[in-house]
Amino acid sequence: MALTLYWGSGSPFSWRVLLALEHKRLPYESQLLHFDKQEHQSPQMLKLNPRGRVPVLKDGDYVVFESLAVLYYLEVKYPQAPIFGTNPEEAGVIMRVICEFQAYAEPALSKIVNAVFTGQVAGAIDELSDAMHVAGREARTIEGRLSKEDWIVGADYSAADMVIFPWIQLLRRAMDKRAAAELGKRFLPMERNYPALARWVRRIESLPGYERTYPPHWRENPSRGGET
Amino acid sequence: MALTLYWGSGSPFSWRVLLALEHKRLPYESQLLHFDKQEHQSPQMLKLNPRGRVPVLKDGDYVVFESLAVLYYLEVKYPQAPIFGTNPEEAGVIMRVICEFQAYAEPALSKIVNAVFTGQVAGAIDELSDAMHVAGREARTIEGRLSKEDWIVGADYSAADMVIFPWIQLLRRAMDKRAAAELGKRFLPMERNYPALARWVRRIESLPGYERTYPPHWRENPSRGGET
Repeated sequence: MALTLYWGSGSPFSWRVLLALEHKRLPYESQLLHFDKQEHQSPQMLKLNPRGRVPVLKDGDYVVFESLAVLYYLEVKYPQAPIFGTNPEEAGVIMRVICEFQAYAEPALSKIVNAVFTGQVAGAIDELSDAMHVAGREARTIEGRLSKEDWIVGADYSAADMVIFPWIQLLRRAMDKRAAAELGKRFLPMERNYPALARWVRRIESLPGYERTYPPHWRENPSRGGET
Repeated sequence: MALTLYWGSGSPFSWRVLLALEHKRLPYESQLLHFDKQEHQSPQMLKLNPRGRVPVLKDGDYVVFESLAVLYYLEVKYPQAPIFGTNPEEAGVIMRVICEFQAYAEPALSKIVNAVFTGQVAGAIDELSDAMHVAGREARTIEGRLSKEDWIVGADYSAADMVIFPWIQLLRRAMDKRAAAELGKRFLPMERNYPALARWVRRIESLPGYERTYPPHWRENPSRGGET
């Protein structure tokens, strides 16, 4: 086994795979690609994934990409510290919650975050308010789950947490920008508006290995302004 | 075990689950809901899936929805006649192809099919031409895979085939409408433009149990015109 993960700083899709690798305590070589230098679109990367997207996982000669497929591959290949539950019923709920998040929350979150980080909030405020409305509705559903249990599905940390967590961090970072003040006022402070979600974020932040998954360029630019 | 599937005629998401149930030779009670009577939004159905969408699978008291989650649940619970491969590497590729199809092909296909079946082609022809361009590119990738193997991933019929097949049938049906003549001319006849894809469609059509998965209202309205 020789795992190599190609990833990008701040990519929520990459982040979920880093969380899974850390949870399963799998040793891996970390290949951080720089989006601003188009390193994810290099000839070498396009050979691994013709779409030029990250994350891409290499396991020996085997290559897999698309974050959910990477999580699934890791689970089947390295079943210790399971992330898709321990029985069919849990597996179904975890996958269902992931599919719902991808279908109903991710398009709205992606719209909001992209607009904030490319400085296009003012020109699209109505559309973004609608997107925040959708994101808020989905966040309330998750808040409901987390007010009953420590993790999004049941008693254990799972792929559902790993899929959703990076988007929540990305949304927090976006809402903290000055341009997003109006949009963010119903979301932030998260401790008041979504207390169970806020506790869950801190729970994940204190997991072993978390620091290795944190977007390096966020550490360099922790304050307002800047890019993603 | 008492499986009940709630589904809608012509829903590609429902169709993939029917294909999986037939492939695994699982006995199930078929509950066909009528979209035109809003049966998928009845209080009883909203209790099972608050989003009011199909397919919904009940297995005894257990409920699962979101088609990919239903396929995954069926695989973990009833592993005979596997649909996610027989080793981690196959599992990863099958899930990767499904994720790629959902992320890159489905939004375009959905736009095209909805426009055709709601009679809104003329007003959106540029946008639909772009969507056909995307759909065509993804179809050529699949054509490439099928010109080397009988099934979309490797030597066996899998969840990747089940996810993609209903959309191809839906696209064929849409492109066969008079309003779609211009859009469809690079896709149809499929036998000429996508010969491997056409052979694969016939291969699935001749599988045991296929007739039970075929949208009943398509049988009643096989010709041009009409709705979905």
